[in-house]
Order: sequence, then C-alpha cells, then structure tokens
Amino acid sequence: MTDQPVLEFWFEFASTYSYPAAMRIEPLAREAGVKVVWRPFLLGPIFQSQGWDNSPFNIYPAKGAYMWRDMERVCDAQDIPFQRPTAFPRNGLLAARVSFACAEEPWLPAFVRSVYAANFAEDMDISDLGVIGALLAGQGQKPEPILEKAQSAENKEGLKEQTGRAKEAGLFGAPSFMVGKELFWGNDRLEQAIAWAKG
Amino acid sequence: MTDQPVLEFWFEFASTYSYPAAMRIEPLAREAGVKVVWRPFLLGPIFQSQGWDNSPFNIYPAKGAYMWRDMERVCDAQDIPFQRPTAFPRNGLLAARVSFACAEEPWLPAFVRSVYAANFAEDMDISDLGVIGALLAGQGQKPEPILEKAQSAENKEGLKEQTGRAKEAGLFGAPSFMVGKELFWGNDRLEQAIAWAKG
Repeated sequence: MTDQPVLEFWFEFASTYSYPAAMRIEPLAREAGVKVVWRPFLLGPIFQSQGWDNSPFNIYPAKGAYMWRDMERVCDAQDIPFQRPTAFPRNGLLAARVSFACAEEPWLPAFVRSVYAANFAEDMDISDLGVIGALLAGQGQKPEPILEKAQSAENKEGLKEQTGRAKEAGLFGAPSFMVGKELFWGNDRLEQAIAWAKG
Repeated sequence: MTDQPVLEFWFEFASTYSYPAAMRIEPLAREAGVKVVWRPFLLGPIFQSQGWDNSPFNIYPAKGAYMWRDMERVCDAQDIPFQRPTAFPRNGLLAARVSFACAEEPWLPAFVRSVYAANFAEDMDISDLGVIGALLAGQGQKPEPILEKAQSAENKEGLKEQTGRAKEAGLFGAPSFMVGKELFWGNDRLEQAIAWAKG
C-alpha cells in the first residue's frame, strides 16, 4: 500500500480542548500508521455566524465552570501540565497565521504544541509577537522572516480561506478531526477518528 | 466495606446522548462495584435560563447535523438500534414524572431504557399517555395508578425541585454524572465518572 491514511487535525489556539489533543495526536497516529495534516483555523468567524461574540464557555457560565474543572482532570490523566490562563480566550490569530504559513515544515507540530503549552501551562500571552518569536526560536527558526511571511496579505487571505473551508465542511468547534468528509469533534473523539482513518 | 460507591445518573428523555448512556451504564457500574442512582430532570428550564427556547442542536444547525451523524456512529459502535426521530426534541415531561415517582422501583432502569428506545429507535411519541402506559405495562406494571401518581401535584413539584437541584449543582446538559460534588458531562465521560466513584 502506497497510500497512507490521512487524518486532518483542525485546531484553534484559543481552544482549551485542542491543547490535550495537540499533545497526544502524533504518537497515537504514528502507532496506527495514520498521517496527520495540521490545519489551523479560526473559530471567531464561525462563532460570530452563530451569534456568539465570545467563547461559549464565557457566555454560558455553568458550561465554562465545568470545562475548567474537566480540563484539570483531562490534563491530569494525560500527565500534561495545565493551569487556567488569567485571560481567556487568548487571541490565537498570530499563532494561526504562523502555523498556516509553515504548515509543511517538519517543526510545525512541535511549534504548535509549544504555543498551547505557553497559553495553557505557562499563562503567556500568545498574541504577543515577542512570545511567538521566542517560541519559533525554540524550534531553531529565525523568527523575523517567518513573522513577516505570516503577516503577509497572501498568508492572511490563505488562513481566511482555510477557515471558510472549515465552515463549509460543517466544523463548529475545536479540536475537530476529518477523514475525508467524516467529521469528529472533540479531544475525546481522537481515538475514534484515528480508527476511522485506518478503515 | 459496607459503603458501596455511588454514581448519580442525571438524564433527560429528550437528550440524544442520554440514550446510549442509559443503555450501557448498568453493566459498567456493576462490573466496577458502583451503585447507580437514577435522577430524571428537565433540561427545558435550564436551557431557558441560558436563553434557549429549543434544543441547542436545533438552534445551531452545524452542531445538530454533526450530532445526528455522531449518534449513528456511537450507537453503531455500541450495537444499539438508532433512527433519527421524526420529531426532535420530544417532550419527555411525562416520562420524567413517571421516573421520578418510581425512582426506587427495581424495574425503573428497564422502564427508562424502554422509553429511550421508543423515542430513538422506534420513533414513538413518548409524550403520549398511551405510549408511556404501554411501556409501563411492558415492565409488568399497572399503568393507571402510576400515571395518576406521576401527575399528582406533589410529584410534579418534586421533579421541579430535583431540576432545581441539578441547576444548583452546575448541570447544564445531559447525560450528566455526579460523584458527590464532582460533575461529569456526556456519554463519553461515563467510564471516567465510574472510575472516579471507585476512587
């Protein structure tokens, strides 16, 4: 077989449950022989089209209170560090633009994980150019040319179009996983999505 | 040890994901040595306090479309019959009143499962007195005195108070599981809730 099964991982940097998904997707997929394609997108425009101008976890306090407690349990079970950020949701636009610009780079998954850890384990402001630059340097990359490319008109438009494709495909939250047209939503559907990709 | 661990199962008859949870909770809990307490409640008043006059699966079409596909997959994996009901959400008030009135009866779990199957596998109108009466008869019970008790002012008030307790405890959806004050939401959290109850 020359065709390796493919799983698209749709993530948004502000999304809490995308963090544990990003941390565990690669070993699970590798074990299953499934290739992961990393697809950054923006939930903001999708939420806005549903009439939300904020995270549903802020709009609906009971749901938010539950989510923070559940995140503690999920990260604890997964043995990854977590502390509730002092700001939520943090603007993940810059990090998403960098990720879109560098989607094919071999260091991209490690960079994405480092952004999630900065936000959800270290309480750092991931909308800050200096923070993202430092995380790029942490991957052995020169920040300036990447940040320039990330903020180019072409790249901004490309991310916008990718978000449009997400909406067209029926995505309404993150993390989401796609196998062809089959959609799975939520960190707790990752195993099922990988099994589906394996066929 | 004389004290068996206890898991509260909070369910709403209109809730799609409560169906697979109701079907699988007993064998899982039994195997773990955990006692299940069945707690019917109403999501309507809780949703209304969040500004929703309908199921969020109807209010947010992308989320609804996903849920129906996901339910097919979940029920298929669990090997339980499922067909999308022609009406959604169906009014589960009568069935909830019966369940509240008969919470201590040994046949109650089987009755609850039969109501879910009627709605989500057989597309029957579970708000109908005749349907609920037939399902009670299916448990070897005389429907009339039970339906009378279920619709008594005292029982109606009791279910209302139980729904109030759900809201106070932070419940915002169904199925939910509680172990003491620890809340778990969703069919896919059942295993975790049982493990928590075991301690």
